[in-house]
Amino acid sequence: MSSKVSKGRRQTSTGQTSPVVRRAFSMQEADAQLIEALRVRCATQGMLMNQSEVVRVGLRVLAEMSDEELRNRAAKLERLTVLRPKHPK
Amino acid sequence: MSSKVSKGRRQTSTGQTSPVVRRAFSMQEADAQLIEALRVRCATQGMLMNQSEVVRVGLRVLAEMSDEELRNRAAKLERLTVLRPKHPK
Repeated sequence: MSSKVSKGRRQTSTGQTSPVVRRAFSMQEADAQLIEALRVRCATQGMLMNQSEVVRVGLRVLAEMSDEELRNRAAKLERLTVLRPKHPK
Repeated sequence: MSSKVSKGRRQTSTGQTSPVVRRAFSMQEADAQLIEALRVRCATQGMLMNQSEVVRVGLRVLAEMSDEELRNRAAKLERLTVLRPKHPK
């Protein structure tokens, strides 16, 4: 537990700021629970993260992957069955 | 380009369905652009993914990490500077 980080908000370490935006995503209930499980795992290691931070860490990890690993990971994902009401145009 | 996958929606391979939910997350504009960049990388390899699918792949990858790797990745994330209007209660 020696790796505690401050919960305090701070700007990026480079001092540059990127505008903060909000994005909505569809996921399985299981994915939402996965986020919570990841938060708990981080918390037990002294890193208090919110849901958005967990999502962002995941994106950074993907970005650092090789094309091949990215493709393999993406291929494993099951697609969602979306039953959307049709919007009349 | 031999690993093309169908764009067709399908249920999970195990046949189980988890309810589909929608969740909103705060991120830097740079993170949103990262999602698009990842979609392009997948597309060039024949995998057409939407934004939500990219996010979900990232979560799965995190879930499979060891505690130590997860902590290291999480520690590298810069926190957002959130300037939120106070909601009167």
